[in-house]
Amino acid sequence: MSNIPEHMLNNDAFSQWLGIEIIDQGLGFSVLTMTVREEMTNGFKIAHGGISYSLADSALAFASNSYGVQAVSIETSISHTKAIKVGDQLLAKAKEESKTRKIGIYSIRIENQDKEIVALFKGTVYFTPKEWEI
Amino acid sequence: MSNIPEHMLNNDAFSQWLGIEIIDQGLGFSVLTMTVREEMTNGFKIAHGGISYSLADSALAFASNSYGVQAVSIETSISHTKAIKVGDQLLAKAKEESKTRKIGIYSIRIENQDKEIVALFKGTVYFTPKEWEI
Amino acid sequence: MSNIPEHMLNNDAFSQWLGIEIIDQGLGFSVLTMTVREEMTNGFKIAHGGISYSLADSALAFASNSYGVQAVSIETSISHTKAIKVGDQLLAKAKEESKTRKIGIYSIRIENQDKEIVALFKGTVYFTPKEWEI
Amino acid sequence: MSNIPEHMLNNDAFSQWLGIEIIDQGLGFSVLTMTVREEMTNGFKIAHGGISYSLADSALAFASNSYGVQAVSIETSISHTKAIKVGDQLLAKAKEESKTRKIGIYSIRIENQDKEIVALFKGTVYFTPKEWEI
Repeated sequence: MSNIPEHMLNNDAFSQWLGIEIIDQGLGFSVLTMTVREEMTNGFKIAHGGISYSLADSALAFASNSYGVQAVSIETSISHTKAIKVGDQLLAKAKEESKTRKIGIYSIRIENQDKEIVALFKGTVYFTPKEWEI
Repeated sequence: MSNIPEHMLNNDAFSQWLGIEIIDQGLGFSVLTMTVREEMTNGFKIAHGGISYSLADSALAFASNSYGVQAVSIETSISHTKAIKVGDQLLAKAKEESKTRKIGIYSIRIENQDKEIVALFKGTVYFTPKEWEI
Repeated sequence: MSNIPEHMLNNDAFSQWLGIEIIDQGLGFSVLTMTVREEMTNGFKIAHGGISYSLADSALAFASNSYGVQAVSIETSISHTKAIKVGDQLLAKAKEESKTRKIGIYSIRIENQDKEIVALFKGTVYFTPKEWEI
Repeated sequence: MSNIPEHMLNNDAFSQWLGIEIIDQGLGFSVLTMTVREEMTNGFKIAHGGISYSLADSALAFASNSYGVQAVSIETSISHTKAIKVGDQLLAKAKEESKTRKIGIYSIRIENQDKEIVALFKGTVYFTPKEWEI
C-alpha cells in the first residue's frame, strides 16, 4: 500500500498542529481522526468552521494523492451540519465518487464520537502530470 | 457602526491563532488581513487549504452577523486559485451578493500582497431569530 | 405514503417536457427516470448540462417536499462526470444526507443505462413554515 | 472577435429551445438573454430551477470557449435568489474570475427585467488540449 499519505502528513505542519492521525488509507480513500481543542473554537464557543474544513481538506489530499500522481484541489465545498464542541473526537472518511485521467471527485463525511454527522464535504481535484518521488 | 465583528473576534480563539485583524467592517461586509506562518503550511510547503478557508469563513461570519442577528453558515465553497507562501499577507474582502429575511449569500475574495487572487469563496448563511446581545 | 411528489409532477410543465417519471419516492428520497432527446443536446452533440441539472433538481424537490412542508432550494451544485448521449436513459436517486427543522441536505446521483455515473449533485433546502395542502 | 459562441449556439438545440440570444461576447465573457415561457415552469408555477441553471451554463460555455480552446465544465453551483415568473426577461452575464492554463473560474449573475438578481452561478472549467476548428 502507498505510503504517500504518511509522507505527506509528516511534512504537513498544519495537519500536525490540528493533531490529525491517519486511521486508514489506500487507493482513493483515507480515514483521519483528530480531537478538538479550545484554541480551535470561534466566537460561538464551538469549533471554527475552518477546523472541520481543514480536516476534510487533508483527507481529500491524502485520498487523491494515493495513486502516486500529484493532485491539486480545484474546488471544494462544505456544509457544517452540527456544532462541534471542545473535546469532540472527529472521524473523517474520504471516498472517491468519480475518477477520470484528469479529474477526481471525492466526498468526505465527518462524524463526531456519537456517530453524528457534523460536516459534509465535496472536493474536486486535478491530477497533474507530476509523479510523487518519495 | 456595529461592533459585533470586533466582539466576535475578541472571543474567537482560532481567528486569533491565525492572526486575523479587522481592517474594515459594516453592514453586510468585512475586510480582514492575516500573514501566513510556517506552521500553517502543508506537505507541498504552501499554505494548507484550510488556512485561506478559515480566513474567508471568519470574513463571512463578521459580514453576515453585522446586522445584529445571529447568522449561521449553511453551505460554503472555495476555490484555491494560486499557491500561498509563508510570509504572504492575505487580504479577504467579504461582500453581500443577496439578502432576504432568512438567507444571505456572500462572496469573499482573498488576495495576496501583490493583488493576485489566491482564493474565491462563496458562503450562504441562515439568519436565526436570535439577536446579538453584547 | 405521501402523494406530494406526484401532485408536484402533475403540475410541473418543465419536468413533463423532460419526460420525467417517478420510479419511487418516500420520506426524504425519490427515484426518477427520463430519456434524453435530440432537442436536449448542446453544441457538442451531447446533453446540455441543464438537462441533468433539471432532472436532479426535480429529484431534490420531490424528496425534500415529501414531509408535507414546503421546501425551497437554497444552493445546489453539480459535477458532470460523463457525457450523456441522445437515447440515454437516466436514473436519478435523491438521498437525504442531513435534516434539521430548517435545513435539509440531499445528494443526487444520476446514472445512465450502463450504470455509469454521469452526474453528482448536492442540494440544500430551507423548510418554510408553509404546509402542503393537496 | 471570436465567433465561437455564435457557432456553438447555432448547433445547440436546447439553448435554441430556451430562446437564448447572445447580446455580447468576447474573450472570457458573454451576455445572454431569454424570456421565460409557461412550459418552463414547475409545480410552484415559477420557472423550474433548471431553466436559470441552463441559461447560466450556456453563458459559462460561451465565455470559457471564447479563446479557441475547448473547455469542459468540471463543477458548477447555483443559488436561486428570487422566484422567476412567466414572461420574465432574463439577462445572464458571465465574467471570468480566474484563469490558468488548465482551469478557469467564471461567475454568472442572472437578473430579471427589473434588474433584480434571480440567480448566482459559479462554474469551473478545464481547458482541454483540443482547439476549436470552425
